[in-house]
Amino acid sequence: MDIGFVGLGIMGRPMARNLLKAGHRLTVYDPDRPSVDAVAEAGAVPAASAREAAARSRVTITMVPDGPEVEDAILGPEGALAGAAAGTVIVDMSSISPLVAQKVGQACAAKGVEFMDAPVSGGEPKAVDGTLSIMAGGSPEVFDLMRGLFEAMGSSAVLAGPVGAGNVTKLANQIIVAVNIAAMGEALVLATRAGLDPETVYQAIRGGLAGSAVLDAKAPMVIARNFKPGFRIRLHRKDLRNALSAAEAMGVPLPLTGLVEQILVSLVAGGRGDLDHSAIATFAEDMSKTEVRRPG
Amino acid sequence: MDIGFVGLGIMGRPMARNLLKAGHRLTVYDPDRPSVDAVAEAGAVPAASAREAAARSRVTITMVPDGPEVEDAILGPEGALAGAAAGTVIVDMSSISPLVAQKVGQACAAKGVEFMDAPVSGGEPKAVDGTLSIMAGGSPEVFDLMRGLFEAMGSSAVLAGPVGAGNVTKLANQIIVAVNIAAMGEALVLATRAGLDPETVYQAIRGGLAGSAVLDAKAPMVIARNFKPGFRIRLHRKDLRNALSAAEAMGVPLPLTGLVEQILVSLVAGGRGDLDHSAIATFAEDMSKTEVRRPG
Repeated sequence: MDIGFVGLGIMGRPMARNLLKAGHRLTVYDPDRPSVDAVAEAGAVPAASAREAAARSRVTITMVPDGPEVEDAILGPEGALAGAAAGTVIVDMSSISPLVAQKVGQACAAKGVEFMDAPVSGGEPKAVDGTLSIMAGGSPEVFDLMRGLFEAMGSSAVLAGPVGAGNVTKLANQIIVAVNIAAMGEALVLATRAGLDPETVYQAIRGGLAGSAVLDAKAPMVIARNFKPGFRIRLHRKDLRNALSAAEAMGVPLPLTGLVEQILVSLVAGGRGDLDHSAIATFAEDMSKTEVRRPG
Repeated sequence: MDIGFVGLGIMGRPMARNLLKAGHRLTVYDPDRPSVDAVAEAGAVPAASAREAAARSRVTITMVPDGPEVEDAILGPEGALAGAAAGTVIVDMSSISPLVAQKVGQACAAKGVEFMDAPVSGGEPKAVDGTLSIMAGGSPEVFDLMRGLFEAMGSSAVLAGPVGAGNVTKLANQIIVAVNIAAMGEALVLATRAGLDPETVYQAIRGGLAGSAVLDAKAPMVIARNFKPGFRIRLHRKDLRNALSAAEAMGVPLPLTGLVEQILVSLVAGGRGDLDHSAIATFAEDMSKTEVRRPG
């Protein structure tokens, strides 16, 4: 298929490469020229703008940092929608507010262009391996058209509902992950301060109702003082902010999410925005001057 | 072994029965006579007090609702310590503040009686099946002595540290469980209010970093509107209160735990204290007048 790919950052580059490997023809754009060159070497055709990439494509995928960049890449004067023919498809795989996804979807519909939001989870390693989890919002017809492309980039793809539903699902995911990490932090700090070995506590509770993917992935990182990303606190804060603004627009108060979002604001302000989100636990540590480490 | 068992409630009765099945001789006490009779029918010898039960036993186990009842059952004038010979062992399997466990442990040590705190998780079904998870605090020697008894009542037993460590571990567990349920509630309410099917969202996220034992056990209960306990909100609130008071005594602030404890206070005040703790999610539902149900 002729595919446009806009946004060749840490996530976009390996995703574009996996589409090339699957035999698709890619026209790519990113304002950063070395990123374009890296994907062109793998066989992609460079374009001068998102508009030009979309003009040559049946499906144009965007993968950029947040809502403003999505609006620029799709709705801007040099954006994909300006170049997309009626009947073609634009799929935004960035993680953004579902409200922005719906706004972009309406603008596309007004020009006869189909739109789907399809954010991913799994981070750079799973983008490289082509094993991302993809959460999509849009029509069943577009989802069917995208199935092969999603299979090239991910190991699972779920159609969660209409346009915006992909990002709502992603935000639900990010709320749970952030709050679960913060809860783990409080529990491990309490146990460590009481003189217990946090590793023993982790092993004692991981098989029961307190067990979680977060506990198994992040407790060992905290105990080993390894906060190498992985997924950065700065980006998780963006997701929680998007969750809170979307929730507010629907009249949904989220007190725990709000508290954890403010904890992340504090960590970013304290210079920890580029640490892995397991370092959310350091907020509880700092408050009681207690590092979660093994004794001795 | 000659065992005293004090506290024959919903948990204590099946635990005592499993010790009888394993071939131990039990002397039992509970102020509620029918509860004593139920265990006496299975072969236990009734005693007139915890003191009398301990006087006949090598190991005396207590299983009562909270700290004040533990102090009464062990340190009171008719308590186990008054009857226990030097060199015998008292093991409290209730879930209480680690501070109370340490106080009781010191009083026992002053009389030459060994003490262990060994709270459990798993609830009534696992008490009946003898598959509780046991978190112990005390000396390695007492833990070795107790190993066979713990095997009769549970499927796992971990020595987490000295006296008090069992309850610290249990509280770490309860913090994570309560906060994870509350986070799940916010995520599912947001998704449902946005028009998504909460079952689809649950299935889309359960295999990733948001996955947890809480999500798999409790999301289906919330979606099915089934809040039959299980573990009651009232008891989970008691555990969070014990966590906060122990943490405060150690100079450890726990903001998320504090917020969720107050949510549980609100639910108990609203008449929901006897619902399963999955109903923690109803707090987020009420705030936005949105029930987490499948559409249609």
